[in-house]
Amino acid sequence: MKCTVCSKTAEIALRSHNSAFCREHFLLFFKRRIEKAIKDFNMFSKEKRLLIAVSGGKDSLVVWQVLNEMGYNTTGYHINIGLGIYSEVSENISKAFAKRLNRPLYVDYFEKEVGVSLREAAKISKKPYCSVCGMVKRYLINRKGTKFDTLVTGHNLSDESATLFGNILHWNTGYMGRQFPVLEDIGSLSRKAKPLIYLTEREIAAYAFFKEIDYALLRCPNARTTTGSFYKNILLEIEEAMPATRMNFLKAYFLKIQEKFREDVKLSPCKKCGYLTSQDICSFCRLKEKIKEGKK
Amino acid sequence: MKCTVCSKTAEIALRSHNSAFCREHFLLFFKRRIEKAIKDFNMFSKEKRLLIAVSGGKDSLVVWQVLNEMGYNTTGYHINIGLGIYSEVSENISKAFAKRLNRPLYVDYFEKEVGVSLREAAKISKKPYCSVCGMVKRYLINRKGTKFDTLVTGHNLSDESATLFGNILHWNTGYMGRQFPVLEDIGSLSRKAKPLIYLTEREIAAYAFFKEIDYALLRCPNARTTTGSFYKNILLEIEEAMPATRMNFLKAYFLKIQEKFREDVKLSPCKKCGYLTSQDICSFCRLKEKIKEGKK
Repeated sequence: MKCTVCSKTAEIALRSHNSAFCREHFLLFFKRRIEKAIKDFNMFSKEKRLLIAVSGGKDSLVVWQVLNEMGYNTTGYHINIGLGIYSEVSENISKAFAKRLNRPLYVDYFEKEVGVSLREAAKISKKPYCSVCGMVKRYLINRKGTKFDTLVTGHNLSDESATLFGNILHWNTGYMGRQFPVLEDIGSLSRKAKPLIYLTEREIAAYAFFKEIDYALLRCPNARTTTGSFYKNILLEIEEAMPATRMNFLKAYFLKIQEKFREDVKLSPCKKCGYLTSQDICSFCRLKEKIKEGKK
Repeated sequence: MKCTVCSKTAEIALRSHNSAFCREHFLLFFKRRIEKAIKDFNMFSKEKRLLIAVSGGKDSLVVWQVLNEMGYNTTGYHINIGLGIYSEVSENISKAFAKRLNRPLYVDYFEKEVGVSLREAAKISKKPYCSVCGMVKRYLINRKGTKFDTLVTGHNLSDESATLFGNILHWNTGYMGRQFPVLEDIGSLSRKAKPLIYLTEREIAAYAFFKEIDYALLRCPNARTTTGSFYKNILLEIEEAMPATRMNFLKAYFLKIQEKFREDVKLSPCKKCGYLTSQDICSFCRLKEKIKEGKK
């Protein structure tokens, strides 16, 4: 197979783009997809201070690498959730990567911020680990993000199309109305952008491989098969039969459909901390309260 | 396994309803699903004259049977598309069923109405058989339907959820805005209702089996694997993992979402015949014109 651009031997074929690329032209293609996302959704300019939410996984390291290469002003932010070796490795990889890029990295610790470990927090709030962990991380990332112009996350096409797919199957219209590649800051929620929106997991993994990015490969010890990965697999099956379906589905949603669902978003400031929530008091404050009661 | 209602031995289990039924209570459940659909969407009353679009397949015969049993004023309408033994059998089954119900049945013939056979019409219009056949049948059914209060079709939950799913994947918002279990008559389009909207193919096949309804089993000789059946299979896979997803997906769409897409419907009367179309002249009139030109 030949590269679609230069006719050298191709290293990767992309059916949804009806293309194949040598390493050089794949890296160029990859950068252009990010430039296009930034431009299409007016994400940010070179003057802006960007906070990158860095888990240590491939998506967050890749988006940091590319934005840094492009000359954006980036700072990393990592949250250590305190799950043994998994969290230690993730923190170390994030720190090593910040050093490689020669960019600053903030690190916060779940237990220090919440007062108890994730395990205890899940027990106290009677919720699954993943839901407590996600809630706390979102809260902390938003809090840190408001000190920057824009918070950047590594959400990609595979993630976002699966999320949209699940939200549509259950018509979670409030979530659908908040799903967009760039979200302006409202109240206590920081401005957010997802520059990897036009790139699939496979493309991001290939980029990481070509660029020798040493990302965290350990799976979270609490991770099980989630409905998210179920939807991803369903979409891969559809993609197999009809290449580019995910891309067209997601892009058309953002450009033509999403505005129909904006009125379904019902958020108001938390009466304790001002964080935007669908309830009177946000989940983070409710967790903190429960921990306080427990300690009495 | 026991019947959820009477504890007799169950003959059918319905995971999406978390139930199992003996024959008697399945038939009752089935009837109630139709009554609920008629009521939820205000489909029609006993005084109305209903035209049932009858293909000879299980859906159309079952809906006719149930509505007749319930005491509705029904008349059948069959279109013979002239495809050899398949069409002969379909017409004969429809006629025999009309006799069994002791209700009138109109029959029209593709070739008589269009002037040429389906095969020729497809050639002349340079379109696939299925698209020409569907277009002509919709046109004729609408034309006949306007002479009645409501046109009833056998579209079921499996069909409608697959159609909606495909329309969402490609955001065909014009179609989404017209998809509803009951459509009021506008211009030349007859009023339409789909009483089987809350019942799956499997449930309808079981009803036909229990009631000894002798429906046409031959597949259309032109039928191939369609994208429709691909989407049906994808939804079955989702249903397997999460029972009742299709039902909730479709019902919530109709009750909460569909109105958001109504403004996307762009139909205006055909300049030749008044049939509502998204173009200046409807596909049926364009086909007739081409046939006329060809004959000159």
